[in-house]
Amino acid sequence: MGKVILTGDRPTGKLHLGHYVGSLRRRVELQNKGDFDRMFVFMADVQALTDNADNPDKIRDNIIEVALDYLSAGLDPTKCTLFVQSRIPELAELTVYLMNLITVSRVQRNPTVKTEIKMRNFEANIPLGFFCYPVSQAADIALFKATTVPAGEDQEPMIEVCRELVRRFNQVYSSVLVEPNIMLPENATARRLPGTDGKEKMSKSLGNCIYLSDDKDTVWQKVKGMYTDPTHLNVSDPGHVEGNAVFTYLDAFSTDQDFADFWPEFQNLDELKAAYTHGGVGDMKCKKMLNKVINRMLDPIRERRAEYEKDIPEIYNILKKGSDAAREVGANTMDEVRKAMRIDYFEDAELIKSQAEKYAK
Amino acid sequence: MGKVILTGDRPTGKLHLGHYVGSLRRRVELQNKGDFDRMFVFMADVQALTDNADNPDKIRDNIIEVALDYLSAGLDPTKCTLFVQSRIPELAELTVYLMNLITVSRVQRNPTVKTEIKMRNFEANIPLGFFCYPVSQAADIALFKATTVPAGEDQEPMIEVCRELVRRFNQVYSSVLVEPNIMLPENATARRLPGTDGKEKMSKSLGNCIYLSDDKDTVWQKVKGMYTDPTHLNVSDPGHVEGNAVFTYLDAFSTDQDFADFWPEFQNLDELKAAYTHGGVGDMKCKKMLNKVINRMLDPIRERRAEYEKDIPEIYNILKKGSDAAREVGANTMDEVRKAMRIDYFEDAELIKSQAEKYAK
Repeated sequence: MGKVILTGDRPTGKLHLGHYVGSLRRRVELQNKGDFDRMFVFMADVQALTDNADNPDKIRDNIIEVALDYLSAGLDPTKCTLFVQSRIPELAELTVYLMNLITVSRVQRNPTVKTEIKMRNFEANIPLGFFCYPVSQAADIALFKATTVPAGEDQEPMIEVCRELVRRFNQVYSSVLVEPNIMLPENATARRLPGTDGKEKMSKSLGNCIYLSDDKDTVWQKVKGMYTDPTHLNVSDPGHVEGNAVFTYLDAFSTDQDFADFWPEFQNLDELKAAYTHGGVGDMKCKKMLNKVINRMLDPIRERRAEYEKDIPEIYNILKKGSDAAREVGANTMDEVRKAMRIDYFEDAELIKSQAEKYAK
Repeated sequence: MGKVILTGDRPTGKLHLGHYVGSLRRRVELQNKGDFDRMFVFMADVQALTDNADNPDKIRDNIIEVALDYLSAGLDPTKCTLFVQSRIPELAELTVYLMNLITVSRVQRNPTVKTEIKMRNFEANIPLGFFCYPVSQAADIALFKATTVPAGEDQEPMIEVCRELVRRFNQVYSSVLVEPNIMLPENATARRLPGTDGKEKMSKSLGNCIYLSDDKDTVWQKVKGMYTDPTHLNVSDPGHVEGNAVFTYLDAFSTDQDFADFWPEFQNLDELKAAYTHGGVGDMKCKKMLNKVINRMLDPIRERRAEYEKDIPEIYNILKKGSDAAREVGANTMDEVRKAMRIDYFEDAELIKSQAEKYAK
């Protein structure tokens, strides 16, 4: 088996520039590079239910949003398999078997789980399903024998759990599963995009996101209102680019070509930064530049989206076909898993023969 | 839906008289009474794996032993559905969804889990799968919409977890699952048979079991060596029947007819007990009586076993057919479950239509 890439998102809201720069853009690059045997991108609705059990409609409504975001961003169902997690019951089956190979305290020690529990204010009331999600996530990876999981640094402890479980399974039963490697973002700016308000992270609840599906007007309203440098009161004042969200976004998105086309006064972002730091460059001009950069990036995404939106039933159809294809892969792995565990009693002619001989004596 | 009975055993060893008196005999009675719409009896191999993950061969070898015990004891595959748990992956799927509806601390508080963890010396190293087994057991019951679970008192907290999960599911989603009731043993002697050594419980590791599959010689050797009353040194001494395993067994198994046929000196067990307590009845005579009583009970079981042993592949076939039939029931419930949870995206024409209309605007 060669290289198998697997990634996904919880479908709890439409995707924003943070998702794009953090993962989606890279997935499209990986897909188009074609340097893999198979690529899976999935909507983790089962995982989303672990902390949204009483609000399945949120997930249900966002399946189509995320699918449109994926397709518009350039994921191509002929090149990668797009699927919905709940359509692969084999994931639950593998989860149940992997849960026997890890202790409660090992899961408790997982720093990602600790952080997430804190973030959600669960404290003593952690849903059991949420507590177990590192194992369920390991099953997602292991069922598809993924070798390569593009993810952020915060996911490293989760991938380590998966690697441990795979090693343990292969050691206790037989070598069926594959240890994955994490593929970290290539550069720091891609790791986390702040919100338009300068807060650490884009978050729907803070209302500081620019969505892939935002139209031109909406983007401009949001960019115009962005957090910059609170000490930069007059154009002539020296400005700060550190912690200035406009510059963080320009870092993430602008190219030299963008400067040549939209703001030829500067050859590149470094020149603009120098001038801004020195004083004499207004925030509004920087925002107008950023607006153009973002729209240049979003325009082809918007065009594709407009096409896909014309036939919504076909989107569901794409997901269904992808899910059927993914399920076939999952079912094959589970056949191997049950065989390795020697619980394939009825398919095991050797077992039936040997038991018959035992009783014939 | 009417009455649905569900019970099972972990296939980790052949069944003994403790199983027979505690559950199996009653299952056969229930089956033959026919006062139910459906009856399921299953081998909980998935549950057995939660604390035997590194020894699947133990489970694998005992599937056929337990199946032979079931069939020999009188379970009839035309009247009740015999199945193997791991053949029903829908159980894992339901388990994963139910895990979202219960907290970690609720599971921790379960007294049955506490006792079992202590019994197994797990302490800090509890396998996660074992920790979660109350939920997995709730899924076993709920998937088959069992109304009636024949079980011992020690299982009451487990059934309560199931009832809570069913209520919570029905309240959060919609009323699909059914709250089960426990059906406790009718009399105290049936609740727990001591070992032949007088210890609290028959246990394979203590070597104090009489198995349903033991032949006449083996039964006699075991009965002959049974623990009686250590103060009853001479026949003429007064004896004690309390804590005397021979009398506990006679309590559980002997009938007035047995006395008429094998020891007409006494009309019934009460008369024998009175004489033994008074003094003048030897232990060996009581043991001979018990031996006859046990063999009368085991003889028809042995005859059926001899027949079934002639065609072992057919036993596997019976289990396979039962498992296929059980899976059909489970798959139907899961269709209802996914629909109730509104995660049946691709089957939901209404969802697809409404999303298409939303984007057409």
